[in-house]
Amino acid sequence: MKAHVHVTLKSTVLDPQGQAIHNALKKMQYRGVEAVRQGKYFVLTLDDSLDAETAQKEVERIAREVLTNPVIEEFRFHLEDSK
Amino acid sequence: MKAHVHVTLKSTVLDPQGQAIHNALKKMQYRGVEAVRQGKYFVLTLDDSLDAETAQKEVERIAREVLTNPVIEEFRFHLEDSK
Repeated sequence: MKAHVHVTLKSTVLDPQGQAIHNALKKMQYRGVEAVRQGKYFVLTLDDSLDAETAQKEVERIAREVLTNPVIEEFRFHLEDSK
Repeated sequence: MKAHVHVTLKSTVLDPQGQAIHNALKKMQYRGVEAVRQGKYFVLTLDDSLDAETAQKEVERIAREVLTNPVIEEFRFHLEDSK
């Protein structure tokens, strides 16, 4: 099973890195982009012996306690059965 | 319209950052994680005047030419109509 975790800055937090990319895109003449936000993306490969409920809890705990800075970031995740 | 772009290391490329997170999780007694890979995640807010086809092309071009290092990374993206 795989867990896909997205960690993004809260919408109220300024994102200078995304802003820098946005400015670069404008200078490079790319059209139609109004804003860029950058986040982090983690793929956790889970032990197949975990049942879905345990996996859900464990990933939620890892995302909350380790991968996310709760002051400025928020996370979401979903589980995917791997072949 | 929003574009969600995921940039990840090619599976053949070592990911020391993901490995470091994996080691940290093991030391912290989190169970059931076999591997961690870290990637980048971008949300581009697009001008609503773009039609879907143009947006698709423009985002594909930005992802390929700017956001991804083609030597070691690959990307995927999807568009989402925003409210």
